Order: sequence, then structure tokens, then C-alpha cells
Amino acid sequence: MAKKQGKYTKKLTSAPSVLGFAALGSKKESEGPMADYIDILNHDSMFGQATWEKAESRMQQNVSEKAMEKSGLSPDEIDYVLAGDLLSQCIGSNYGLRELGVPQIGLYSACATMAQGIGLSAMLVEGGLADRAMAITSSHFCSAEKQFRFPLEYGGQRTPNSQWTATAAGAVIIGASSMPPYIRAVTIGTIVDKGITDVNNMGAAMAPAAAQTIQRYFNDTLTGPDNYDLILTGDLGFVGSALLLQLMEREGYKMKPKHADCGLMIYDRESQDVDAGGSGCGCSASVLCSYIMQSMRAGKINDLLFVATGALMSTVSVQQGESIPAIAHLVYLSTKAN
Amino acid sequence: MAKKQGKYTKKLTSAPSVLGFAALGSKKESEGPMADYIDILNHDSMFGQATWEKAESRMQQNVSEKAMEKSGLSPDEIDYVLAGDLLSQCIGSNYGLRELGVPQIGLYSACATMAQGIGLSAMLVEGGLADRAMAITSSHFCSAEKQFRFPLEYGGQRTPNSQWTATAAGAVIIGASSMPPYIRAVTIGTIVDKGITDVNNMGAAMAPAAAQTIQRYFNDTLTGPDNYDLILTGDLGFVGSALLLQLMEREGYKMKPKHADCGLMIYDRESQDVDAGGSGCGCSASVLCSYIMQSMRAGKINDLLFVATGALMSTVSVQQGESIPAIAHLVYLSTKAN
Repeated sequence: MAKKQGKYTKKLTSAPSVLGFAALGSKKESEGPMADYIDILNHDSMFGQATWEKAESRMQQNVSEKAMEKSGLSPDEIDYVLAGDLLSQCIGSNYGLRELGVPQIGLYSACATMAQGIGLSAMLVEGGLADRAMAITSSHFCSAEKQFRFPLEYGGQRTPNSQWTATAAGAVIIGASSMPPYIRAVTIGTIVDKGITDVNNMGAAMAPAAAQTIQRYFNDTLTGPDNYDLILTGDLGFVGSALLLQLMEREGYKMKPKHADCGLMIYDRESQDVDAGGSGCGCSASVLCSYIMQSMRAGKINDLLFVATGALMSTVSVQQGESIPAIAHLVYLSTKAN
Repeated sequence: MAKKQGKYTKKLTSAPSVLGFAALGSKKESEGPMADYIDILNHDSMFGQATWEKAESRMQQNVSEKAMEKSGLSPDEIDYVLAGDLLSQCIGSNYGLRELGVPQIGLYSACATMAQGIGLSAMLVEGGLADRAMAITSSHFCSAEKQFRFPLEYGGQRTPNSQWTATAAGAVIIGASSMPPYIRAVTIGTIVDKGITDVNNMGAAMAPAAAQTIQRYFNDTLTGPDNYDLILTGDLGFVGSALLLQLMEREGYKMKPKHADCGLMIYDRESQDVDAGGSGCGCSASVLCSYIMQSMRAGKINDLLFVATGALMSTVSVQQGESIPAIAHLVYLSTKAN
């Protein structure tokens, strides 16, 4: 039975396990440091489809099929799929998974979706409410630019603080098993809004949410950075990562030696011209479901805090002068079941 | 511990209870049959705000506060809020609840959001993962028309099949208690797409999803319409309701005497000029959280299937020639704990 540990953290005593995982990327991701670890690298960023949105749907379909194939499971053996994406009305997941035939729990938590999906999946398994659940998310550079920023044809200049939306996806299947890694705890985040209004600086909007969730987790569990091999944030990028470390330092946590950010791992900032790093739901999902999960399976990373961060604005809210609310969800993964 | 009943239905053996609920509407809802039962009726559809989207956010804030007030609970006593809405990037909930201070699980399931939120909340309570969880959703006629259809100023002609998006919201707080009604079972739906492409006929797109989920529930539980006082669909409206009854009849279920639809209850179709009825996340949420819940508390309705239906398209997917995927989630509420 799950135990409340402190105020915000659920400790999962049955240690739901990662039964399978898969990652997908496109051309730019195939040129980055994660290329050797990503299962599907398709250089055609249209994924054979006529539109970017249909391409993103196809990515969710492909990555879910790969995760099931790698874990030897069929859709019939999965109780729930928990999925979301950045597109308005989540059409990436709603069209991408419409032929899957699995009961679907629709999520929206922007780029925090992967942690929310894994956390909820693990909670459902822990509570005996699912034997197996699959968490999926994606992002596509072109569908995101079109929706959130400028038409690609316009060729707008990017700012140095801006991040590059990854054309990537990830899927994780959670269930009871003795195969590591295990999901040991979940901290669902609270919305934080510090008044940032610059949509080209989402790292700064999201860093305070990440700091709050990580601090709550440390307080609840009476642990600190030294208890983990890696504290992996979603996609704060260069600007947001520096800010997070400052905010943690201010509370007495020296997190720098243990911190990495998926937005700084998926591309080589020196050679790939991505300004402050990668972003998008698919960024943290694909890094987690490739290099990180493989390292955990190999015993190279044993205790991991995965903290995905989401910026919860829309173009409409920003045009109306609103600031950017942000959220961060945390899951603790370990190669040890207890 | 939750039990799988049949393939798709989770029977909740601890019978999580409805601790509190509240409903909100605006001017048109105040002129309809639900007016006497809705807690907050604000004739100012701007809710004191400068934009329709900010109005919808304020609605979520108001209805969540009312549900807590009525149940004597503070935000501090609620573990999770599960919320979503129809607006792109769910800004209704993400801005409306940003000051609530409760860990937030973001949902997107279009107009099926209320059933998904209540179902998930009840599952989290059942599994020992939350003491209390609050499910919230909303819709606003103007923000929905602007986003999905035409600028209101354009004054477009409505078709007879079209439904009127309710300016309404509802909130339910779930927890362990001996107060009826109880959530006894949950059936999460699977996406169904029968190829309907007319966005002015969403009832027809959603009816097959409702039929599938209800049939699965009946199959899983070995029950039928006679076992319930009421089978309440979300917002199929006039066209979708007729189609649902036909689809059920074809499978041998005579559901007509037990069926009602929130889209046909919230307005008087004769006098209120709403064509095929009401719709929007807030339609089923406000009907459930007013007349229906009050009738259950009074023992006038004892066994209820609440089946909210969602159309999962976006304007982009429709412009790209895609059909409308739909989903329906079901929760079984009863005044008896077992």
C-alpha cells in the first residue's frame, strides 16, 4: 500500500517496475549525443505523412508499438495508456493512439507530461488499479513552432534564451515485475508562477517550479542530492538549469555535481545551433527512454530523480498579457526495489 | 483493494465517497431547468474579467472554492486537483487554479473530462494514493466558439445538429467517508472513430463511443439498464442521444426508459434556441454537480451511471480532413456503499 511520505510525496512500497521503454527521434536528434541510444531514428521528419501534426501522431504510434515490441507485450495486455502532447486538444496522442485499442487517460501537463504519466501509471499499478499502464508523449519541432511561435516559412530570428523543440517521443510501460528500474516515489507538482512573461525564456519560468518540487521531495523524504546518482530535469536548458542550481543553493542544496538536464543532453549546443538547448515533451521523454533507462538497466545509474517541467501558457494567454505558470512533477527511479 | 471486473471495469471495493460538489453557470444556464440547483449563477458571463478565457479561469476558481466551502475543506486538505478544459493548452484550469496551491494533475479528455477526473480521483483514493482529490472542469460559450468555430462578431448561422456550449463548471471532491453517494466502479473508455467529419454533429461522433463504454460496463458487471435508476450521458444532445439508443437497442439493451442526457437537461430546447442541446465540459459537470448529486443526496436517485463523452478533434485536425475521434468514460455512483 502506498504511503504518504511527508506532505507531497507518495512512496510506492510495491515498487512498480519499468517493463519496457522506447525512444524515437528524427534527423536533428540523430546528429546529437543521444543518437546511439534512441530506438527509432527517422530522418524523414514528416514520418511519411502529409502534415506535421499527422507526423507527430505517427511518432506516438511508432514509439508505442516499439515499447510493446521490446517488452513482448500486446495492446491487449495493457490496461491504460496515459498520453498527452503540446498540440491544442492533444491531437498528437488522440489521433496517434486512436487505433491502439487501449483505454486512454488523456493528460495535459505541457513538457511535464512524461513525469506525470509515469507517476500516475505507477500509482495505478501500486494501488492495484492496473496490471500494466503505458505513459507516452511526443513533440515535433515544426508543429510546435507553427502553433506557439511563427510560421516556419517566416524564418524568424531565434533569441539566445530560446530552446529548440525536439522532434522526439518516448513511451514507458509500468507494471509489477522484479525487473529494475522500479518507481519508488512520486511527487506531483503544484503550479508556480513567478511572473515571467517572455515565451523565449521558458527555462526561467520553469526553474522555480522544479526547485519547489525537488525541495518538497527532499523535505518529505529527508534526503538530499548526495542520496542520488543523478537529478535529471526535463528541459530547463542552459538558462533554466543555472537558475535552478541557484535556487537550490539558496536553500542549502549543492546540487550541481548531481544535476543534468535533458534539454542540454539531447543536442550538442556547440555544433547544433540550438541556443539554450532542447525542449518539448519529447525531449525529456526520449532522453529518459534511451540513454537513461539503458544506463539504469546496465546498473550505471542506480538512483535517479526524474523531474519533468512544463510551461502551462498558450499563445492566447500570452497575447492577453498573462505570465507563464509552470509545473514540475518528480518520480524517483531506483535499481533497488526497496 | 480494487478489483478488475471483466476486462474494462474497475470495481472500487472501498467505495470512495463524494465529500462535496458545486456547480456554476451564467445567464443562459440561469434561464434553464437546472437554475434552481446550481450553486453559483453569475449573469455577467465575463465574470468580472477582461477576456472570455480569463472569465473561464475565474469560473474554475469560483467553483473549486464553492465545492471546498460546501464540504468544509481547505486546499491544504486536498492531495490532488485533477482538472482540464477545452481551451488549447487547458488554460482554463492552468490559470484558474494556479493560486489554489494544490498539486495538480492536468487532464485532457474534451467533454469527457468530468468522468475521467472523477474516475481517476476515485481510483487514487481507492488505491490509498490520496486521502482526498478534487475533479474540476469548465466550458465557456464564447471562448469555445472563438476557438473552435467562428468569431462571435461574425454572427454565423448555426445548424440544427449543432449544440450550444454551456458557460458552466463543476467540481467534485472525492475521499473516504460514509457519506453517499459512493463511486463504486470506473470504466475508462477507448477511442472510437467512425469517420464522422461534420464538426456541427458531434453528438453523432460521440454516440458510438458512449455505446461501446456502456456495453463494456454491462458485459463486465453482468448488469443492464434495469439495474440503474438513471444512465446519464454527458452531452450527446438530441441527435447523439437518439443514435446511442439505437446502437444500444441493436445489442439488445432497451435503455430509453433509463436514459437522460445532460445536453438535453441544461437548457429548454423549446424556448432557449439551443438547436440539438447543450455541450462543453461544463455542461455535464454542472448538471451532475447540481440536480443529479442533490437528488442522490436526497435518495431520489440511488444508482447512477454517469457517462461523459468527448470529441477529441481540433480545428487543425479537422482542417486537415481528419475525422472526429471520440471517447466516453463511465463512473458508477450509488447511495449504497456495497
